[in-house]
Amino acid sequence: MIANHFTDMKIIRTVSEMQHHADELRKDKTIGFVPTMGYLHEGHLALVKAAKILADVVVVSIFVNPIQFGPSEDLSRYPRDFERDAKLLDEEKTDIIFYPDDGEMYEKAFSTYVEVKKLEDHLCGKTRAGHFTGVATVVTKLFNIVKPHYAVFGQKDYQQLTVIERMVRDLNQDVKIIPHPTIREADGLAMSSRNTYLSSEERRKALFISASLRKAEEMFSSGIRDAGEIRKAVNTILHTEDGIDVEYIDICDAMTLEDISTLEKKAVLAIACRVGKTRLIDNTILTEALQ
Amino acid sequence: MIANHFTDMKIIRTVSEMQHHADELRKDKTIGFVPTMGYLHEGHLALVKAAKILADVVVVSIFVNPIQFGPSEDLSRYPRDFERDAKLLDEEKTDIIFYPDDGEMYEKAFSTYVEVKKLEDHLCGKTRAGHFTGVATVVTKLFNIVKPHYAVFGQKDYQQLTVIERMVRDLNQDVKIIPHPTIREADGLAMSSRNTYLSSEERRKALFISASLRKAEEMFSSGIRDAGEIRKAVNTILHTEDGIDVEYIDICDAMTLEDISTLEKKAVLAIACRVGKTRLIDNTILTEALQ
Repeated sequence: MIANHFTDMKIIRTVSEMQHHADELRKDKTIGFVPTMGYLHEGHLALVKAAKILADVVVVSIFVNPIQFGPSEDLSRYPRDFERDAKLLDEEKTDIIFYPDDGEMYEKAFSTYVEVKKLEDHLCGKTRAGHFTGVATVVTKLFNIVKPHYAVFGQKDYQQLTVIERMVRDLNQDVKIIPHPTIREADGLAMSSRNTYLSSEERRKALFISASLRKAEEMFSSGIRDAGEIRKAVNTILHTEDGIDVEYIDICDAMTLEDISTLEKKAVLAIACRVGKTRLIDNTILTEALQ
Repeated sequence: MIANHFTDMKIIRTVSEMQHHADELRKDKTIGFVPTMGYLHEGHLALVKAAKILADVVVVSIFVNPIQFGPSEDLSRYPRDFERDAKLLDEEKTDIIFYPDDGEMYEKAFSTYVEVKKLEDHLCGKTRAGHFTGVATVVTKLFNIVKPHYAVFGQKDYQQLTVIERMVRDLNQDVKIIPHPTIREADGLAMSSRNTYLSSEERRKALFISASLRKAEEMFSSGIRDAGEIRKAVNTILHTEDGIDVEYIDICDAMTLEDISTLEKKAVLAIACRVGKTRLIDNTILTEALQ
């Protein structure tokens, strides 16, 4: 049993109660939704603030979705602290936390998956088999449970955002997806629940990631359009010191996520690497608007 | 442009208009839904009647879903007659026909699919690769567009019904699925839009299908529980004359669709065969309630 110390914030733990409540709300209010895996940081809270501006009622879900973790990934060590999360969300005047347990979301005979083909073959999809199917599936479930008018997703998980936008269009999910710029620490590190895994030495090294993105933006602004040249410069920065293990540095079309060699249309530079045992991702959008 | 001669029945052709209308309706009414591929017969109309009893407003969709047809299947020759369908639905006091064209349902970059694993490996799934993914995907889209409280599906397409029920549970689609018994011609043939393909000679031969199901029910009622014995009797009846090409005669668990050798729990006997070039399916549920 989760104690609810919050007078104005509701904590809902079952699918049926959330659906019933959403139906009632939709009669005369709009619902804004922020799906999270908890262990909230300023990045999440920025999404909540954005949702508050858009909608009458804000629902935040906290659910560490097991089906988006691979067998060798960090599901069991993924950080969790519901009491702290609830306090932070209450301070943001969140209306409802949807906080189901695993059994409420996945019954034993569960066997239906939402697959966004093609988009999941690129970037993180290459090494995280099934990850985006897990994400698309749980987000579809959450949309059917929370019934939001708006859902806010951070651009830090760029491929996730692209997959969700494609899925919403394809399946006619009646939700407007609101992308939100990446929130960073003062020194540039993209906020992530996984940053908590970093030692102070790793934390320092991780700064090369955002530094390399800033370098790429500079090169793009100065007129460089050769993807190979930008990639090379990013790679050099990431290898300034030992300790960053690069998984990919990809420059791709911002819609299809296909690799490009020349930057013409809206492109995204996306990086995944390991700092110690911690996998970090970051990205920047390279578009004429930057000029 | 589709002319609308019907004063009380609305014909909606776009996703956005249907969604908007559904949102308005849901504020104080319940929506019943019957998805069809058109070329309606008494079987469909029975589903519409059932929906009328359940819900305040009945929506029927007419859409021949291209992604559920295999490359060698009958998509282009599938029978269509919108004017006739609309007239029949008007007589049933249908409130709304949702009648989108292919482009409205599938844009060029479409790439998201809903897959119900395991259930699609059995029965028709063995020869119709991708068929049930096509069905689950379009039904998900239609649920997101029509936003029904109830959706009525015929038991004639037993595997389809099972797949949809599993999907609705797994994805938390907030729709109550209402199964409806198979409607038959006076002589026993299960109604199907594909019956229109049959020559009168084929039409006569097709009667062996329902006759074989009645024989199986009799055997079950008399206490026979050996699936092999029932299967053999069914097979014998289907081969009374030349001209029926049996694809499968399967006796399986009514929930998981896995083959069973002894009838203990609720089971289904399902048949697929070709009469001439026309593929026909039929089934019966074998359960103690029959006794």
